[in-house]
Amino acid sequence: MRSSAIIAGAFAPAVLAAIQAKNVIYIVPDGYGQASQTMARDLATLVDHAGDVTRELAADDMVRGLVRTWATNNLITDSAASGTAFACGFKSYNNAVGITPDFQPVGSILEAAKLAGMKTGLVVTSTINHATPAVYASHVKHRNSYDEIASQEIGYSHPLGPMVDILLGGGRCYFKPKSESGSCRKDDKDLFGFAKSHGFHVMQNRSAFDALEKGLGKIRLPYIGLFNDDGILDQMKYELDRVLDGDEPSLLEMVETSLNSLHRATHCKKKGYFIMIEASRIDHAGHANDPASHAHETIMYNKVMDYVRKWIDAHPDTIMMSAADHECGGLTLNGYRPLALKDVTRSREHLETVWKNRPSGADSRQFLVSEILPPFGLASATDAEINTLLQASNLGNELVSLLSKKAGVNWSTGGHTASDINLHGYAAGEMGKELSLVLSGHHDNTELPRIVEKALGVDMDAVTKLLRANGTNWVVKRDFDETHIVDEHNH
Amino acid sequence: MRSSAIIAGAFAPAVLAAIQAKNVIYIVPDGYGQASQTMARDLATLVDHAGDVTRELAADDMVRGLVRTWATNNLITDSAASGTAFACGFKSYNNAVGITPDFQPVGSILEAAKLAGMKTGLVVTSTINHATPAVYASHVKHRNSYDEIASQEIGYSHPLGPMVDILLGGGRCYFKPKSESGSCRKDDKDLFGFAKSHGFHVMQNRSAFDALEKGLGKIRLPYIGLFNDDGILDQMKYELDRVLDGDEPSLLEMVETSLNSLHRATHCKKKGYFIMIEASRIDHAGHANDPASHAHETIMYNKVMDYVRKWIDAHPDTIMMSAADHECGGLTLNGYRPLALKDVTRSREHLETVWKNRPSGADSRQFLVSEILPPFGLASATDAEINTLLQASNLGNELVSLLSKKAGVNWSTGGHTASDINLHGYAAGEMGKELSLVLSGHHDNTELPRIVEKALGVDMDAVTKLLRANGTNWVVKRDFDETHIVDEHNH
Repeated sequence: MRSSAIIAGAFAPAVLAAIQAKNVIYIVPDGYGQASQTMARDLATLVDHAGDVTRELAADDMVRGLVRTWATNNLITDSAASGTAFACGFKSYNNAVGITPDFQPVGSILEAAKLAGMKTGLVVTSTINHATPAVYASHVKHRNSYDEIASQEIGYSHPLGPMVDILLGGGRCYFKPKSESGSCRKDDKDLFGFAKSHGFHVMQNRSAFDALEKGLGKIRLPYIGLFNDDGILDQMKYELDRVLDGDEPSLLEMVETSLNSLHRATHCKKKGYFIMIEASRIDHAGHANDPASHAHETIMYNKVMDYVRKWIDAHPDTIMMSAADHECGGLTLNGYRPLALKDVTRSREHLETVWKNRPSGADSRQFLVSEILPPFGLASATDAEINTLLQASNLGNELVSLLSKKAGVNWSTGGHTASDINLHGYAAGEMGKELSLVLSGHHDNTELPRIVEKALGVDMDAVTKLLRANGTNWVVKRDFDETHIVDEHNH
Repeated sequence: MRSSAIIAGAFAPAVLAAIQAKNVIYIVPDGYGQASQTMARDLATLVDHAGDVTRELAADDMVRGLVRTWATNNLITDSAASGTAFACGFKSYNNAVGITPDFQPVGSILEAAKLAGMKTGLVVTSTINHATPAVYASHVKHRNSYDEIASQEIGYSHPLGPMVDILLGGGRCYFKPKSESGSCRKDDKDLFGFAKSHGFHVMQNRSAFDALEKGLGKIRLPYIGLFNDDGILDQMKYELDRVLDGDEPSLLEMVETSLNSLHRATHCKKKGYFIMIEASRIDHAGHANDPASHAHETIMYNKVMDYVRKWIDAHPDTIMMSAADHECGGLTLNGYRPLALKDVTRSREHLETVWKNRPSGADSRQFLVSEILPPFGLASATDAEINTLLQASNLGNELVSLLSKKAGVNWSTGGHTASDINLHGYAAGEMGKELSLVLSGHHDNTELPRIVEKALGVDMDAVTKLLRANGTNWVVKRDFDETHIVDEHNH
């Protein structure tokens, strides 16, 4: 649907008037393309439902339309430009976080909700300062400004103060001062300390998270929980690894806890909540061309969609919208055999670490055959395949190549692609019908937050004015060394 | 949406009751995946609209949901199994035409419309006896039974007689007896003769087609027009080649003429029409991995969608539904640069024929550089690239590989893939909203004809009973030598 149609189209005004929600749940399956869902459905059908191919996953029946995703400087977007579009309503360049191409900040739908008196949340499986959550509560020239994004997200350097009442995900090291062990900051800002002094309850491990929900309402908003101990780049673990390791909450558990907290904080009040939930690592598995993890992260996204649909049925003053930021990996199912993925219990990421840390005296071939191939579903690899793996310059690349071949799936890139992505929505009763009509058809990603803005009756442009009220030099500041930047526009 | 939801879901009964159409236009963009539309849109935007990337193509705003496509014997369907699903409402095996896996015929939505007193049409750019049109008016064990399919389509050997009032497309050679020049039949059935004796107006070239519309109503239904003279396998030409050669009507011209004919034949009557329009060669260009032809066939599909939308606005007793049968080629846009396709004026298919028929004394390199590369947008190929092309065992493969690389697109297969495909729909006014709600979400391809069946108030199961009334041995009959069959399940 064209922007003009949203604003003044044939049935748009009447329809939009009918969508008045107290709460909005926005879900981003990062890097999720159309083939991701087919792949996950066929695998889930095979593993859990004895080949009943009439079965659907939760997201299926909530598909309403499509979204185009181009950035201002590339037909293929990254998460930052796409996020700036669907969080703030403006197109920008790849790497831009919450700003226009002329480096001016633009208010996000989360900031608009917060300033309107609502509660807000960001729940992700990436680092909390990764591009997709970043665009909702920070404004920087480049997504790699991880230190500054964390500082803005917690309110330390955000010109309007703390904007987010719930922050859950990875990225703990960015919230500790450089001087503290486990920090990855380049300065001595103590963001956990700042958070505590501003009333945040701070959680740094799974037991603290579990205690939160057991306390049922005793621990109130705001809170921040950053859990991972040893994820690559401080992300949370892939679902396959998390299930076996058991030391982190799942995305679904974080969603359940967050929605219960937000509900308790708002259900007696006039103002509701806005929460962005990101199934972040569908994208990472796409970049890694790891078929089993891509499918299992997508299945977890569908579990969250199922929970949220039931939540809305029980809380009909709430609406849900969901769309990826872009496709990732160029995944196609050119000869799909889900059975080949059935026995995979570990991610490429995990097994690469296992391989890297193998005992110095270990026999490589023996270690590969006993410790790496079985959990990657390749226990029956031939001698020739094992030889190829051992001779590979990058074992991970060769592992996913072999598994993808056996599973009959193809990846055309380690980056993103230009394809449209699916748009989902859900609301209860008559409002559900109205929402379906609004989301039906084709949308530019910049149109999406405007639908939420109207449904909540908040004002993003007013936030933009506030952000610019005292100048915008704070946006231009960068906290990383440009000379060492690898262009991540395609991540 | 699950089948049960269509029949007895939350709002389905009320909604379906509201969709009562006199006429249905069903459009199949064969082999059209989500990346096909993005690719075509970005190219059309660049070429026709000076880079205005906010522009949409006609199909965009009519997207309503998604369709899953598996066949009974493969997660990747062919056109025959998928067509049997969306024409007749039953899953079957790849290669099956209008029959269930136990070789029993099932009535199609076109046959149900015809038996209810409606007018019917099949308009395609493939041969008229190709799998997609075949499933609407014939019932055979294997799609390769081209002679028998043609015989049934015209009514010669269909147990219920002629079912189709308009047949337009390629495949003329199958309607001439073996003894006649230009025939490709293996027997002496004269199907054009049969057609004439049963009241059909027969057209065999573009001028006869042009005369049809100039005659404005003087020539009445039924009619058959099979136009191509020299297409590969008797298909109609790719749009790129057709534009330059000018000897065949375009799909859009055939659609305009057909809709006008059907309207004239039914507008004063209570019973309307059902027409299936197929943009057949999106699929063929996918099999050929030919990016420019794939995009231009997709643009033609969008032109038809635009015309039909306007037609329905002027004739609001009509509804449109449109979905591909499957994705083809495993197309992804992993580094898309539409500019590389801008100067392509010919299909791979055409240029392979030019190459094959080059003068015996011609210098290969010179011929390639002057006659092949410029119309394929490769005028600036390097010496190294030209050497690679000249050394290739299959020039066509190498040409599309080079062009695809320059255009930043990737094909993972010469066959189909398992991915879901997009579902479109359009109706005017309030009925348009109801149709959007019915099509919203996710559907098995078998659900689609049931929606049409209810909207038209016709009965497919009654057709099935009639087809089986005198036994079903006629289905089992095969007219080709099984020992020479290449398994075409993935075409």
